[in-house]
Amino acid sequence: MNFTITRTIKAQQKLSRSIIAKGKTIAIVPTMGYLHEGHLSLIKQGLELADVVVTTIFVNPAQFAPNEDYARYPRDTRGDLKKIRAAGGQIVFMPKAADMYPDDFQTYVNVEKLTETLEGGVRPGHFKGVATVVAKLFNIVQPDFALFGMKDYQQAMVLRRMTTDLDWPIKYLICPTVREKDGLAMSSRNSYLSPAQRREAVALYKALMAAKKMAQNGQIEVAPIMFEMRRVISQTAPSGKIDYIAFTEMETLKPVTQVVRNMVISLAVRLGPVRLIDNLKI
Amino acid sequence: MNFTITRTIKAQQKLSRSIIAKGKTIAIVPTMGYLHEGHLSLIKQGLELADVVVTTIFVNPAQFAPNEDYARYPRDTRGDLKKIRAAGGQIVFMPKAADMYPDDFQTYVNVEKLTETLEGGVRPGHFKGVATVVAKLFNIVQPDFALFGMKDYQQAMVLRRMTTDLDWPIKYLICPTVREKDGLAMSSRNSYLSPAQRREAVALYKALMAAKKMAQNGQIEVAPIMFEMRRVISQTAPSGKIDYIAFTEMETLKPVTQVVRNMVISLAVRLGPVRLIDNLKI
Repeated sequence: MNFTITRTIKAQQKLSRSIIAKGKTIAIVPTMGYLHEGHLSLIKQGLELADVVVTTIFVNPAQFAPNEDYARYPRDTRGDLKKIRAAGGQIVFMPKAADMYPDDFQTYVNVEKLTETLEGGVRPGHFKGVATVVAKLFNIVQPDFALFGMKDYQQAMVLRRMTTDLDWPIKYLICPTVREKDGLAMSSRNSYLSPAQRREAVALYKALMAAKKMAQNGQIEVAPIMFEMRRVISQTAPSGKIDYIAFTEMETLKPVTQVVRNMVISLAVRLGPVRLIDNLKI
Repeated sequence: MNFTITRTIKAQQKLSRSIIAKGKTIAIVPTMGYLHEGHLSLIKQGLELADVVVTTIFVNPAQFAPNEDYARYPRDTRGDLKKIRAAGGQIVFMPKAADMYPDDFQTYVNVEKLTETLEGGVRPGHFKGVATVVAKLFNIVQPDFALFGMKDYQQAMVLRRMTTDLDWPIKYLICPTVREKDGLAMSSRNSYLSPAQRREAVALYKALMAAKKMAQNGQIEVAPIMFEMRRVISQTAPSGKIDYIAFTEMETLKPVTQVVRNMVISLAVRLGPVRLIDNLKI
């Protein structure tokens, strides 16, 4: 099909309906734009699963706290469209905030337990905004498949829980984090980094690799691994401030004190005004 | 199509998908069973709109408070199925509570402002349970139309708001209350009434009719109308206890002090252990 941009909820619903009526399947890749290789890998994986990939670009005000970076979140619509087209994505849905959240909007989706820790603990209300907008996008795009990146690990778990709990007939896929050559997880927010901060930013990946190595070498206690991670970060990123380092059971996000199967180590580090997150499944 | 009963989420999703694939439309009539003429009128109206009507029967634990009547809510599955079939309804979805709410269930839909008053004020958490189960039923049944009764006026408004806010591509219809010969609004909970309480129960309708007459005769102040309603209730139902009488703007549920267009008078009255609600659009 031709490359198509939809800008209203009704237009996207009509387009999705016509695709479904032809017996074709749809994959959704929800994004906030300013696309990098991580997003494009989701689009490419979507194309392997479904006939049509709908990439959504929407900087969602409901998931930013007043003190966060909603207004200055990086935007590059022209570049994004070019990248999506080159990756083979057929449809881009780009709604306006005023259409997504009209004045009398008042319905929110909340995933309870999984959102109490990690990012949810540091960013209250964040996941309520994320779950609500993705619920809306699911109903607008009517996908058969939904693809999310592992970089936002807790988000991926929260939205999978939402999809299961509310019974959307959608196959939910979590795809591997795409990294820069030095290991930094790709993120739109990396564009905020100064050259000096960019050099320090590799600290997150380095700390995760150090943890992996210790676990592989038989260290089963979390405490010494966490100690080593803190050491690596302070050495590699002297200006960094650690928000958290967490060792959790993959599905439930419950903290563990010993290395277990299906464990995820996640961390958030501030470099000046930039907040970076990363994680690794052990 | 043949009369079909589905008992699992997967079975209903598969059945809905096959109906949609044939280009046919679906209407949903969500119920808690123990069906009366009000429910059947929704099924009949659904059949005029859609090719297939899916009636759901599920006494939803999430919308009952611990002190409420979940355990003793009236049930009559065999009678319900007979009535649905006679009304022309083709599919009945009857899930188990353990399948709808598995142990790790934790996602809820909440409509905020509209749920703060009336029933929401008296029954905290009630509408969160209602919105959540209907969100699930929408995703399971995948309807083109959804039909709700005006008897549960605030519920109808809350669920319409949810449908709009979260962008389900569903046409939402609110249908008139069906009444007994003496005016009592049909309700599954009427079965709780003793013969003496049943005679008193007409007080709600009588009070609404008295209010209507005063408004039609030019009374524009709410206060004297409410005074008269209280008088009618205490006269007709001496054992009745009024939970609330409310005059609200139809869409927003905001209270009014003068008679306006699109105003709804609603009230809740307890007769012994039985709580009855009714309303009238003026």
